[in-house]
Amino acid sequence: MQRIYEQRIRRVLDALARQGLEQMIVSDPDSIWYLTGMDVDPGERLYALYLNANGNHKLFLNRLFPVPPQDAPQAVWMTDSDNPAELVASNVDAQRPLGIDKLWPARFLLPLMERCPQMVCRLASDCVDNARACKDDTEIALMEQASRINDQVMEQAAAFVREGMTEREIADFIRARYRENGCESESFPTIVSFGGNAADPHHMPDDTVLHPGDCIVIDMGCRKQRYCSDMTRTFFCKKADPTYAAIHDLVRRANEAAEALVRPGVVLKDLDAAARDLIAQAGYGEYFTHRLGHFIGQTDHEQGDVSSVSQIVAQPGMIFSIEPGVYLPGKFGVRVEDLVLVTENGCQVLNQVDKHWRCIG
Amino acid sequence: MQRIYEQRIRRVLDALARQGLEQMIVSDPDSIWYLTGMDVDPGERLYALYLNANGNHKLFLNRLFPVPPQDAPQAVWMTDSDNPAELVASNVDAQRPLGIDKLWPARFLLPLMERCPQMVCRLASDCVDNARACKDDTEIALMEQASRINDQVMEQAAAFVREGMTEREIADFIRARYRENGCESESFPTIVSFGGNAADPHHMPDDTVLHPGDCIVIDMGCRKQRYCSDMTRTFFCKKADPTYAAIHDLVRRANEAAEALVRPGVVLKDLDAAARDLIAQAGYGEYFTHRLGHFIGQTDHEQGDVSSVSQIVAQPGMIFSIEPGVYLPGKFGVRVEDLVLVTENGCQVLNQVDKHWRCIG
Repeated sequence: MQRIYEQRIRRVLDALARQGLEQMIVSDPDSIWYLTGMDVDPGERLYALYLNANGNHKLFLNRLFPVPPQDAPQAVWMTDSDNPAELVASNVDAQRPLGIDKLWPARFLLPLMERCPQMVCRLASDCVDNARACKDDTEIALMEQASRINDQVMEQAAAFVREGMTEREIADFIRARYRENGCESESFPTIVSFGGNAADPHHMPDDTVLHPGDCIVIDMGCRKQRYCSDMTRTFFCKKADPTYAAIHDLVRRANEAAEALVRPGVVLKDLDAAARDLIAQAGYGEYFTHRLGHFIGQTDHEQGDVSSVSQIVAQPGMIFSIEPGVYLPGKFGVRVEDLVLVTENGCQVLNQVDKHWRCIG
Repeated sequence: MQRIYEQRIRRVLDALARQGLEQMIVSDPDSIWYLTGMDVDPGERLYALYLNANGNHKLFLNRLFPVPPQDAPQAVWMTDSDNPAELVASNVDAQRPLGIDKLWPARFLLPLMERCPQMVCRLASDCVDNARACKDDTEIALMEQASRINDQVMEQAAAFVREGMTEREIADFIRARYRENGCESESFPTIVSFGGNAADPHHMPDDTVLHPGDCIVIDMGCRKQRYCSDMTRTFFCKKADPTYAAIHDLVRRANEAAEALVRPGVVLKDLDAAARDLIAQAGYGEYFTHRLGHFIGQTDHEQGDVSSVSQIVAQPGMIFSIEPGVYLPGKFGVRVEDLVLVTENGCQVLNQVDKHWRCIG
């Protein structure tokens, strides 16, 4: 097995040991790729990596999946006519507790627990997810690359926007630029929201037409060589209502206040508080309806969040979003989002696009 | 609550009662839509419908989700700072067994089981999934509509193909036609495979260029008003190698043999056997590497399959695919797939595109 995978599996096994576990089922395809290099989209079929402290790791694979590399963990092949739970049950140590990662669905987990009633299944996703949360150098370089592309495309999109365009046209434009840059895909469906639509943080681009005075929220990210970017900027079409411009300033300052605190050792709920307090003091607390940020890597939302209850302590290599927002139902929305990388001494903001409000279109 | 939702929930509760259950967690967003009309993409957040035989149903919702209609089950709201397992634990009857649907991930299920150690959690997905498997008239009309569009677009694609094109160009063409027809999306990423690429049943379209003599596998489906289509046809570019053409004939006959048997009461493994035996008798059994078909509805692959071990008994309203294939590694692949609807007396094939091989390009 390649050294990078050995190192990563070692980190997971060490974390398991600290929880008193010697074996675990990893089912998140991104985690399996992270630990073995195998890339499979299993659909509804069983796909799992079984880790054991004794080094006897196994990969549960369907005959329809690609053949793993020579140095991957031992393959346990199955077909659509085999019983997945039976196969797993006969390969784990039913005398010891078994760690399970966050995504394993009830359709595999419950039948396994029925077959091994004396085996305790424990949620041990953190053992993998915490390893994935701290990016190594290869991963950091890929995250920087994806954010560099995102910066470029955001500027291109801002220059492309014109009064009279629809949200969908702008989202299509962004998607095409990602493709030109060799990205596999968006890291999530691009959000483009005009005016009142922006009050829904998750509004999907539709045929709404851009009018002067509308705010324009663009929340976008690409996936390149598996790794994701994610950034939001909010513009105005031609002119900005002074009240809304002031709210934009407020949200930007909340973003900057949080980013200024990022360094190893900070508890992530304190970042959330820094942004939230500022917004609340200005009287908009109830309109900041979501957490401050989320971890990101191979997928846009990875385990780990930056919320008012997050006890996660920042460590070098962590990458997460800082994205305060204010949403006035039916009227207006603004969000300002960067990705930040925790460094040895502080943080590096991965996005360079100016955060101040500006009029475009 | 609207009558259609009442009827559907009643079917689920009846099925639960037959399994000795009075309560259930439904987490599949498509099932929740099916039972309430609520349409939410929850990402990693908790989203679940709790059904109780006493009629006291509840919807677990995050403040970030849209507000349900007035007549939806009672909402239990949470924010990102609440503990999902705690919230569910305090709303279920911990003295009785709880049914769980297939998708509920370990990150919610295991913490709930820890909080309610005396409560037995049982996989009861079938209670919902079997209801969904038998389409009602509204659903059948939508499935017919989606397959009608798929037929049209397949013919357009066959007319569009030219020697020298790439797989990706053809997949893009198909996607654009779906959009023109008002589809939300593809029902799965379109497969276009030339020549040796077709030996991988799940090959993704790339920049491979079409040459005379190549086989062309097109496996495609659209999603319109939530409901999906799915069809495969295999063509040849300009000329057909006689051996490959004969294998195509074989696979088509396997498709037709299985479809001829579809009627209420048939056990689905017998359909698989009808197609598989024919292919095996011709010496290609080991190259038909997957099950014969899968159920379909709001998603391309729904619970229920047509495999050599499927004990499912066909009932009116069921819709599934019939898709035998033969895959010669590195050289060639062919698959012929229709959707079929089980009717009172037999079956209706939802696809009309001719299944015989033809040369295009």
